[in-house]
Amino acid sequence: MLGQQRPRSPQVHADGSVTFWLAAPDAKSVAVRNTSGGYADWPDGNELALVRDDQGVWSATIGPIEPEYYSYVFVVDGVQALDPGNVAIVRDGARYGNALRVPGPRTVDYDVNDVPHGSVAHVWYPSPTLGGTRRMCVYTPPGYEASGDRYPVLYLLHGGGGDEDAWTTMGRAPQILDNLIARGEARPMIVVMTNGNPFQRASQDYLPPAPDVPLIGTGQPSPRMVRNAGIPEFPESLVRDVVPYVDVAYRTLAARETRAIAGLSMGGAQTFYTAFNNLDLFSWVASFSGGFPLMPGVPVEIAPPANASKLRGPDITRSIDPEGFLRLVPNLDSSVNARLRLLYLAIGTEDGLITTHNAVKHLLDAQGVKYALMELPGYA
Amino acid sequence: MLGQQRPRSPQVHADGSVTFWLAAPDAKSVAVRNTSGGYADWPDGNELALVRDDQGVWSATIGPIEPEYYSYVFVVDGVQALDPGNVAIVRDGARYGNALRVPGPRTVDYDVNDVPHGSVAHVWYPSPTLGGTRRMCVYTPPGYEASGDRYPVLYLLHGGGGDEDAWTTMGRAPQILDNLIARGEARPMIVVMTNGNPFQRASQDYLPPAPDVPLIGTGQPSPRMVRNAGIPEFPESLVRDVVPYVDVAYRTLAARETRAIAGLSMGGAQTFYTAFNNLDLFSWVASFSGGFPLMPGVPVEIAPPANASKLRGPDITRSIDPEGFLRLVPNLDSSVNARLRLLYLAIGTEDGLITTHNAVKHLLDAQGVKYALMELPGYA
Repeated sequence: MLGQQRPRSPQVHADGSVTFWLAAPDAKSVAVRNTSGGYADWPDGNELALVRDDQGVWSATIGPIEPEYYSYVFVVDGVQALDPGNVAIVRDGARYGNALRVPGPRTVDYDVNDVPHGSVAHVWYPSPTLGGTRRMCVYTPPGYEASGDRYPVLYLLHGGGGDEDAWTTMGRAPQILDNLIARGEARPMIVVMTNGNPFQRASQDYLPPAPDVPLIGTGQPSPRMVRNAGIPEFPESLVRDVVPYVDVAYRTLAARETRAIAGLSMGGAQTFYTAFNNLDLFSWVASFSGGFPLMPGVPVEIAPPANASKLRGPDITRSIDPEGFLRLVPNLDSSVNARLRLLYLAIGTEDGLITTHNAVKHLLDAQGVKYALMELPGYA
Repeated sequence: MLGQQRPRSPQVHADGSVTFWLAAPDAKSVAVRNTSGGYADWPDGNELALVRDDQGVWSATIGPIEPEYYSYVFVVDGVQALDPGNVAIVRDGARYGNALRVPGPRTVDYDVNDVPHGSVAHVWYPSPTLGGTRRMCVYTPPGYEASGDRYPVLYLLHGGGGDEDAWTTMGRAPQILDNLIARGEARPMIVVMTNGNPFQRASQDYLPPAPDVPLIGTGQPSPRMVRNAGIPEFPESLVRDVVPYVDVAYRTLAARETRAIAGLSMGGAQTFYTAFNNLDLFSWVASFSGGFPLMPGVPVEIAPPANASKLRGPDITRSIDPEGFLRLVPNLDSSVNARLRLLYLAIGTEDGLITTHNAVKHLLDAQGVKYALMELPGYA
C-alpha cells in the first residue's frame, strides 16, 4: 500500500486547489489544519477532515485557495503530526508546521527567483551587556563579497516566540530582499537579524532551552516569555554590543543616515525603545504590528472593542498608557521629525493589536510626531 | 489538562534516563521510536510504548541511555508525529525527527561549548557545469573576519538523502570544528559543504523539489535518488565551479597541500572520484562509510555474508567490481602515495557497507596505495 506511486503530499493543482495524503490505517480521524496564523485563511475553514479509503490512506482536497505561503499540520487522533511527504518545515521558538506554497502573483516576492542571491550567515558575537556570546543571522546582498563597497544596515527584529532564525525561515527575508534589490526597489543593504530574547543566547534548536522554560503547547504565556520581551535589556545589548560589532566585521556605512531599525510585534516595541533612545544611531524606523503592551509599565486593560469578534491575536483587551510609554521613550516629540528619514507603522485592521496601535497613533499625533501609516485589510 | 505544569518533553534526568510526555486523549496507542539510524541504540529497544494516564496524557521513561545525540519521533496510532514539547528538529532530505541530547563525555565534541565559534554562511554560487546558481554552506573559523590570514579548506560532502544543510544540522560540523580548534586538535580552516545532489540546486525546504521526486516514506530508492548520486556530474561541478569560487570569495590557502576533501557514504564515493581524478587539487582525502556501490559501473551483487544478521544498512549484498572502480579512478596506484598527505578510511564493523569497504581496502592494497584505517565497533 505504501509502495503505491501516489503523488507526493501536498499536491498543488494548477487551479490552486491542494490535495493532502496520509497513510494512517490505524487512525480514527485525520484532519489538516491551516496554521498560517490568520493572515491567510482557507475559504472553507482552517481545519478540514481527511477521508479514509479502503487501504487506510486518508486524503482531502481543499480550495482553490489564494496563491500564498501557508503552513499546516495534520491532526491525527487529536495529535499534531507533520506531513511525512513534505520535508519543508517552518518553525519559530514555540511551534512548527509544514510549508505549503501555492504559487501565484502574491508569492513572487517571497519565491526563490532566478535573480542574484545574497548570503545569510549565522554569526556569534560577544555580548558583554547580556553575558557570553550570542548568535545572529546576517544577510549580505548580492555582490557583497566581490565588491569593496560599503552598505547601509537594517536591524530587523523578530516577534515574540521567534529567534534569530525567524526572519530567514518563517519571514523569508532573504528572498524578499533578493527580489526587491533585483527589481531596483531596495538599495543593496546588510540586514542584521538578532535573537531578541535576552535570556536565550541562540535558537532552541541550536542550544537547549534553559530548564525552566514552560511546557510548550499550553497556550499560556509564562513568566519567562514575558521576561523575554526584554525591554529594555535587549535594546541595550543591541546598541552597545551588536551595532559596534557589525560596523567592524562588515563593510557598513556606519552613520545614522544609513542605519535602519524595524521589528514585528515584540520587535516593533523593541524598535521604538531602541530608536527613540538612540536617535544618534538610527534615522529609519519601522514597526510592523507593534506589540507595545509588552513594554514594561505601559500596558493597560481595556474593555473589548465593539468589533472584538472580528479581531484576532492576544491583545484585544489591552492598550497602552501614554504616560508610561513616554517614560520609556522620553524623546518622542516633534523634535524627532527633523532627525528621522522615516517613521513607518504597519498593521492589519483585524489584528488584536489594532486598538493599541490606534492609541500609539494618537500619542504620536499629540506629540507632533510625523509617521507613515500602512493599514492593511484583515490580519495582514 | 494541557495547562498543567508538566515538565517539557523530553525530560532528561540526571542518571541519563529520559521521560517523554504527550497529551493525546483520543489516541489508541502512542510509542516513541529512536530514529538515530543505528549508531546509538537504546538498551531496551528502539520503539517503546507510552502509557496513558486517566487524563489522556501518555508518558514513558527510557534508559538510562548512553550520553549521545539521538533523534526520535512519536508514533501516534501508527503515524509519525513530532514531540510538540521539543522544537529541536533534525532532518535530511527525506525524513525528520526531534533531537534529544543526553549530555556526557561522548557529547562534548558536539555540544555548543563556551569556546570561540566560527560562522556558517548559506551562499549561492554560479554553477555553469550543472546550470544555474546553487546553494552551499561555508564554515569560517573563529577569528576569520578580524584576521587577514589565509586558511586551508576542507570540502565536506554529505551522504545520500542529505543536502547542503546536512553537515551543519545533523552532522554538527560547526560544533565539532569549534571544539577541535579550541583544543588545538584542528588547524583553523574553512569548510565548504555543498549540495551533492546534482539535480537539486538547494535543499528541499528552501526550493520546492522537482515534480518527479518520488513519494517519500516508501523506503524504495527511486531512479532520481540513484541519479542523484551524481558521479561523475557533481564532482565535475565541484572542481570546475566550487573550488575556483571559494578561492576567490574567501581567504584560502589555494594549493593542493592545504586543500582536503572528505565525505560520508555517497559523499565518500564522490570524494574518491573527485580526489583521484584531480590530484593536482587535493592532497588530503577521507571517506567515512564510503558508498562505493553508488559509483556507476562499479556495483556487483554478492551473497549475504555470514554475519549478515548483524549488519545494518542497505548494502549488505553489494560489493564493487575492482575493474569498474579503476575505470572511474584510473590514477589509483602507488604513485599517489608520494602525492597524498593522507588517505583516510573509516567505517563501522556492522555497517552494511563493510563488505564493500573490505573490497576497496583489498583493491588499494593490490594497487600499492597506502591509507589510514579506522574501523569502529558497531554501526559507527
